[in-house]
Amino acid sequence: MSPIDHPQPLSGNQMPRSGGIASMMRLPVYESAAGLDACFVGVPFDLGTSNRTGTRFGPRQIRAESVLLRPYNVATRKAPFERLRVADIGDVAINPYNLHDSIARIEAKYDDILRHGAKPVTLGGDHTIALPILRALAKQHGPVGLVHVDAHADINDTMFGEKIAHGTPFRRAVEEGLIDPARTVQIGLRGTGYAADEFDWGRQQGFTVIEAHECWHHSLAPLMRELRPKLSAGPLYVSFDIDSLDPAYAPGTGTPEIGGLTVPQALEIIRGLDGLDIIGGDVVEVSPPYDPQGTTALVAANIAFEILCILPGVG
Amino acid sequence: MSPIDHPQPLSGNQMPRSGGIASMMRLPVYESAAGLDACFVGVPFDLGTSNRTGTRFGPRQIRAESVLLRPYNVATRKAPFERLRVADIGDVAINPYNLHDSIARIEAKYDDILRHGAKPVTLGGDHTIALPILRALAKQHGPVGLVHVDAHADINDTMFGEKIAHGTPFRRAVEEGLIDPARTVQIGLRGTGYAADEFDWGRQQGFTVIEAHECWHHSLAPLMRELRPKLSAGPLYVSFDIDSLDPAYAPGTGTPEIGGLTVPQALEIIRGLDGLDIIGGDVVEVSPPYDPQGTTALVAANIAFEILCILPGVG
Amino acid sequence: MSPIDHPQPLSGNQMPRSGGIASMMRLPVYESAAGLDACFVGVPFDLGTSNRTGTRFGPRQIRAESVLLRPYNVATRKAPFERLRVADIGDVAINPYNLHDSIARIEAKYDDILRHGAKPVTLGGDHTIALPILRALAKQHGPVGLVHVDAHADINDTMFGEKIAHGTPFRRAVEEGLIDPARTVQIGLRGTGYAADEFDWGRQQGFTVIEAHECWHHSLAPLMRELRPKLSAGPLYVSFDIDSLDPAYAPGTGTPEIGGLTVPQALEIIRGLDGLDIIGGDVVEVSPPYDPQGTTALVAANIAFEILCILPGVG
Amino acid sequence: MSPIDHPQPLSGNQMPRSGGIASMMRLPVYESAAGLDACFVGVPFDLGTSNRTGTRFGPRQIRAESVLLRPYNVATRKAPFERLRVADIGDVAINPYNLHDSIARIEAKYDDILRHGAKPVTLGGDHTIALPILRALAKQHGPVGLVHVDAHADINDTMFGEKIAHGTPFRRAVEEGLIDPARTVQIGLRGTGYAADEFDWGRQQGFTVIEAHECWHHSLAPLMRELRPKLSAGPLYVSFDIDSLDPAYAPGTGTPEIGGLTVPQALEIIRGLDGLDIIGGDVVEVSPPYDPQGTTALVAANIAFEILCILPGVG
Amino acid sequence: MSPIDHPQPLSGNQMPRSGGIASMMRLPVYESAAGLDACFVGVPFDLGTSNRTGTRFGPRQIRAESVLLRPYNVATRKAPFERLRVADIGDVAINPYNLHDSIARIEAKYDDILRHGAKPVTLGGDHTIALPILRALAKQHGPVGLVHVDAHADINDTMFGEKIAHGTPFRRAVEEGLIDPARTVQIGLRGTGYAADEFDWGRQQGFTVIEAHECWHHSLAPLMRELRPKLSAGPLYVSFDIDSLDPAYAPGTGTPEIGGLTVPQALEIIRGLDGLDIIGGDVVEVSPPYDPQGTTALVAANIAFEILCILPGVG
Amino acid sequence: MSPIDHPQPLSGNQMPRSGGIASMMRLPVYESAAGLDACFVGVPFDLGTSNRTGTRFGPRQIRAESVLLRPYNVATRKAPFERLRVADIGDVAINPYNLHDSIARIEAKYDDILRHGAKPVTLGGDHTIALPILRALAKQHGPVGLVHVDAHADINDTMFGEKIAHGTPFRRAVEEGLIDPARTVQIGLRGTGYAADEFDWGRQQGFTVIEAHECWHHSLAPLMRELRPKLSAGPLYVSFDIDSLDPAYAPGTGTPEIGGLTVPQALEIIRGLDGLDIIGGDVVEVSPPYDPQGTTALVAANIAFEILCILPGVG
Repeated sequence: MSPIDHPQPLSGNQMPRSGGIASMMRLPVYESAAGLDACFVGVPFDLGTSNRTGTRFGPRQIRAESVLLRPYNVATRKAPFERLRVADIGDVAINPYNLHDSIARIEAKYDDILRHGAKPVTLGGDHTIALPILRALAKQHGPVGLVHVDAHADINDTMFGEKIAHGTPFRRAVEEGLIDPARTVQIGLRGTGYAADEFDWGRQQGFTVIEAHECWHHSLAPLMRELRPKLSAGPLYVSFDIDSLDPAYAPGTGTPEIGGLTVPQALEIIRGLDGLDIIGGDVVEVSPPYDPQGTTALVAANIAFEILCILPGVG
Repeated sequence: MSPIDHPQPLSGNQMPRSGGIASMMRLPVYESAAGLDACFVGVPFDLGTSNRTGTRFGPRQIRAESVLLRPYNVATRKAPFERLRVADIGDVAINPYNLHDSIARIEAKYDDILRHGAKPVTLGGDHTIALPILRALAKQHGPVGLVHVDAHADINDTMFGEKIAHGTPFRRAVEEGLIDPARTVQIGLRGTGYAADEFDWGRQQGFTVIEAHECWHHSLAPLMRELRPKLSAGPLYVSFDIDSLDPAYAPGTGTPEIGGLTVPQALEIIRGLDGLDIIGGDVVEVSPPYDPQGTTALVAANIAFEILCILPGVG
Repeated sequence: MSPIDHPQPLSGNQMPRSGGIASMMRLPVYESAAGLDACFVGVPFDLGTSNRTGTRFGPRQIRAESVLLRPYNVATRKAPFERLRVADIGDVAINPYNLHDSIARIEAKYDDILRHGAKPVTLGGDHTIALPILRALAKQHGPVGLVHVDAHADINDTMFGEKIAHGTPFRRAVEEGLIDPARTVQIGLRGTGYAADEFDWGRQQGFTVIEAHECWHHSLAPLMRELRPKLSAGPLYVSFDIDSLDPAYAPGTGTPEIGGLTVPQALEIIRGLDGLDIIGGDVVEVSPPYDPQGTTALVAANIAFEILCILPGVG
Repeated sequence: MSPIDHPQPLSGNQMPRSGGIASMMRLPVYESAAGLDACFVGVPFDLGTSNRTGTRFGPRQIRAESVLLRPYNVATRKAPFERLRVADIGDVAINPYNLHDSIARIEAKYDDILRHGAKPVTLGGDHTIALPILRALAKQHGPVGLVHVDAHADINDTMFGEKIAHGTPFRRAVEEGLIDPARTVQIGLRGTGYAADEFDWGRQQGFTVIEAHECWHHSLAPLMRELRPKLSAGPLYVSFDIDSLDPAYAPGTGTPEIGGLTVPQALEIIRGLDGLDIIGGDVVEVSPPYDPQGTTALVAANIAFEILCILPGVG
Repeated sequence: MSPIDHPQPLSGNQMPRSGGIASMMRLPVYESAAGLDACFVGVPFDLGTSNRTGTRFGPRQIRAESVLLRPYNVATRKAPFERLRVADIGDVAINPYNLHDSIARIEAKYDDILRHGAKPVTLGGDHTIALPILRALAKQHGPVGLVHVDAHADINDTMFGEKIAHGTPFRRAVEEGLIDPARTVQIGLRGTGYAADEFDWGRQQGFTVIEAHECWHHSLAPLMRELRPKLSAGPLYVSFDIDSLDPAYAPGTGTPEIGGLTVPQALEIIRGLDGLDIIGGDVVEVSPPYDPQGTTALVAANIAFEILCILPGVG
Repeated sequence: MSPIDHPQPLSGNQMPRSGGIASMMRLPVYESAAGLDACFVGVPFDLGTSNRTGTRFGPRQIRAESVLLRPYNVATRKAPFERLRVADIGDVAINPYNLHDSIARIEAKYDDILRHGAKPVTLGGDHTIALPILRALAKQHGPVGLVHVDAHADINDTMFGEKIAHGTPFRRAVEEGLIDPARTVQIGLRGTGYAADEFDWGRQQGFTVIEAHECWHHSLAPLMRELRPKLSAGPLYVSFDIDSLDPAYAPGTGTPEIGGLTVPQALEIIRGLDGLDIIGGDVVEVSPPYDPQGTTALVAANIAFEILCILPGVG
């Protein structure tokens, strides 16, 4: 299928929301990112997961819940599909029995997306996938700025002796020079740890670390304004772990931590990045088996849409 | 069964909460509103629904969860059953295969309720039902003031080419002169739309529109005080769509939108109307198949009770 | 997209089963039936439903569960995709607020499918949809033979005064001359009724009626052999209501009846039709909100595949 | 409310099945059994439960699922509401914190039912309730015959040192002379035990014990014919524990045992008692928290209806 | 098994979180509190429950979800297992058919724990269990201070005529001199009642009562600072009813009340007690059948851990 | 903890079933198999899974449901705990991010179990684990006989190019000489495949293959008698994949196939092996996220117990 100009989500007035093939927002499905400004892409991978699995089904359920989304963002008055050519390019064919082969396959796919000049908005998958995505991005951009929204710092050196797992990607990203620590912000960290000071390694690298308890009870819009000078100095990637949110908002995830962000705060974070040089983003760790009403996937679909709405060119 | 004076909810000290026929609050069930000051009435209708159905079971599950409610509102110190004669008058016999016949049946039932001088507190049902209810009310009161709490404006001209559906009632209500736009307030609007300015039609009619993001992180008591002069100028109807709430609080609904109101805010809205000329209210869009723990229905039962507590005469 | 020769389901060795767009069996999605021998088509319709709704989501969930299916039927050694050109042609755009308009839209779609010479295997939707499908088929074939597997006879004259609903299609089909009563078989009928003799109307028309209790505890292969002479006399349509099965096997449906068929019996029924002039079939009444583990949808996906395997030409 | 002649279940053609107060089969609710030939009565009691609780909600959920039932039994062509005056008389007000007081309250309620000459069809509640019911029955009838369908023999001397619990009622019933051991049949027993011979105590008293494995794979109609001479010698009570069924058919119960009866076998057991002097029956151990789709409650509602259909006088 | 020095939770780097016996935090299981400074202990009791049962499974599910917890509290930088000897001592063997015997068994167990000088952190069970725990504590400490976080005051004189039930423990505790009313604080009270002034009895005894609506929208850290002088005057017990939280955060409970505390507020309450003479605490009313994703149990596990972190000696 | 003579499951009369640490049947937990005749051991592994994951939680949920089991098998009158010393030895510490390391860890653990002379009864985990278990067994016994009960043959050469996955263990076992093809029986095979003849490879090796459709509607006791001479010629291992059962009986699994065995048939298979030289067995592929009521885990717990009951020495 060849790209058409400005593909549009299938409207609920053309096909009832219960019908139609469940691609992201019921957009057309393309075989590659050729001709696109941005694309939704799924990574059905959960081999790096420490506790509950199931995130391999994240892309499918996020797409299923995304059928509720209409093309305009009324609060921000954004019209992404009028300005950008966007489609769903399906999923990366990860190897379900081999973590390392899967990581290589993911990186290759993102190399291809970036070669076409498209910006990826990723539907995960566990957080391990941020590593190969950042590897692809850094090849093009050098070390990138990072807004990392998560309950966990994901900066372990190893997990069960392994270097690659869903708790290590940002340690590897620093070591491999994929991200710029001075332009890395972590928001929402909390919970129990293997050391009382385990969020400090990031701080020592130069990360800005905002723990969840610093966010309680108030708007994060001021924080985002404060972070803006630091973040505006170059290309910026957004990695949104759904477990950054309190389990009340996002129960369907594998390592839930209580006392998390609210959805309004998450929206303030994303919307607070508008106007910056966003080069892509992901929403990870949605685990459908623990999300029977689809609430978590619905949040994720919206977050992915909000990331789309702040891509350069949407205006 | 003939009405008795001041019917009371069956107490948990007379019958364990797991027992007893599941009428609203385990009140007596009357065949009509004759002799009542207010009544709970169900409308098991979901033929106007765009996405997930199931609200036809809303009245039954709201009643089932309402067995937890005791007769006094401790926070507001209200004692509605001491002051008003209230019963459950069962459900409107809608036609499950015919939207238009159902709408007519609903209107006829509310004509009857109003003829008896009772104030209806409705358990929906999808939001389409607000149209026939307002038709009945406007026959008696002329154009009424409206407090409409919802994620959606419900002011579409048509849906899939149809004039009557759950996204159109307040457009029709304006066109038919059932509500007074200058005394209409919409609170909680948000989400994606078919146009970036789709909440503006209401504003153009004179509605006061409070979007959800204007409500985040703070009490709505000040807002309600601010709105009071406008709302106090005449009879007022309260239409509460459960999807006004964030899905964390009310997952069991058909078109959930993230970033919504909190339950404390909802209570502030209702309690903020105390002392006004409330002529009835509804709680709509509870969809039990998506509410397996009954949480959403429990919220709805409480909202219905809170509406009862602000009816004139409760004091 | 133009048809390719013999489209194949996406293999689990090319894309993990958790990935890939969830079309039926992960087949290619075509815009029409042009160039196909057979097609899967969804009808996301539930406006004719008497009790629990939700079948509008049947096509989507059947597709989601169908990703487990591989292309060969090992028990019967059938290879449908080697012999026939088969794709998923998506859903009929029914009107979610208007039963009668939807019925017309369904009939028009099937006219189009049949015009292309393709055989439809339908994913419902409630059983009302059998009426417009049979209308389309009868235009081409005249009155057709019917194997109707169901808990209910669906031969009411009216429901709530309406002529078209999910309990009336086969009454209408007789009246309109769409089916040949002498070649109509109903299997699995049971449960409570509005009259003690309510299955007799069909018998009076000439239907062969096999009640569920006649099927208990034994194979239905002998029954199918016995019915074969009658069924082999002309074109034959298969309408499979998932509630024919016992709720143990298929809980996710709107009007479950206890004491039903087993899945092995269902397979014996379908496989027992092999070699006859099957002109299409449907699987209806899967209601995903009542099927959280997807078991019912998985059964339906398999039944649809088994119907495909007995189409003439599969060999 | 005074009894009317031959109360009828509310029809789905008068009120959609999703509407109407959820009494048993949507029958009228009476305050006592006065004027009735038979009554449905709930016992929301689970204080005798050894493992999973929740049966206190059994009556309410059985009623909620019973709305699907129509008034005629098509397989047996029985018309109970034409022949008998039947209503729902609500629930026994058990004491939720006191097992012994509850047992006394149950017995008193059944004394009252029997005084009115009505036959009780009970919706449980855990199996402890069979003891006070049998106490009331034996006062009127002397030792009664018993058809006890269950996974467990419920003949423990004590549980955790207590004489009254859901695993002891039939031991007590023998000791107190409430049942006639020679006319007592237990069907469906199975599972693990505290002794390898623990079903033998009943045999020693004279019970006929049919273990579940003796029932596998075949109809129980022959068994019922064989038992008939023994059972026909006097008044007979039917106590149906839903856990007699395999968990595939009835997952929603507190002490499930694998390898149980099928629903067809259960229907054969009840229907095989037609024509005998049935003086009442119960369906117990439905635990709604473990039955989210209502499947178990639906089976129980049907079993209760089938018991009604074999009461003397239905014909 | 004899106590070892400073038992540690089993690490996720030694055994994946999905493995290992599910004791609390995967700590060693001891047969008594001998040699321990603090212990986790379960009370699988729900015989005092007015509405939904199931809290008897609370201890097991809290333990199952606690496997996600790591040994350090990063927000507060507490290291309880470095400072205290802590193990899981299993469950109290309550009598599942006898409320009064169970109460005695609980008291005896806590006498034993206290005799060993260990501080109990209890996993309930319904709130009735606070009474025997306080009886044991008062024998050692005299009337204790109490921080009671709950939706309900639990100060009824009787329930259904009974003196001991989950709504009466703190009335009994005052009457028996187990708590010091002047040092008793109730936080989170709300909902409907049997009288409009039903929280006032506690106030009349000298309790400090903070209703939920006083807590909405803001941090409770200032409140806790304000309460500190009162609370610091002696030994203090913490009784945390999970229904203090809004059902959005803790749906899995038996008598949920809308408009409750948030999890951040709960953490502020517990952390605000740091440095006081905490002699033990409990988390009660987690009902697993209503908590299928384990969210509520996860909150409870964290609350229990936070209580551990403020025990004297943790530093 | 040192082994005691003949450990016994904790009785429901000592500790209510809702209490006590959830080891298998609430047996004592040993650190190794030293001193035991047989042991329950868990393998929380799901890295070889093609579709739905979650079997890593199988051991924990099987244990949780096993608390319902009492020590005697009443149908077979077996008393395993009187004759054998049996305990739960916990879980193998698999590496959750590395399939190959995990396989090695499993083999090492079973080497250790066998060194102690204990017979392992394994709680899986996905079916990949049969390979390292058979490797350990074959080191001791040479090629073993195998009764493999499954929906799938698990004889693929590769999956997604990998040699080790849950669909390949028995291909590897033949290649490595771990099983004796002439004494290998596969029962329950069915479903769709990647070739119409895909079960024939096993037949070509000498396996006896009984497809599911050959089992429908009748007892498997005669089959087991027929197989006995072949199976009695040497040591025999039993590998029971829960997906051999129809999804009606065992919905909680990752690759369900319709038309499967019934639980009575499964019991007949296991019981039909009594008296043979059983050297161990496993129950695999229980996926708790898809088993919210625990039904599948309960079946698995029973199957594991039934395997224990046929171990030599139980008598």
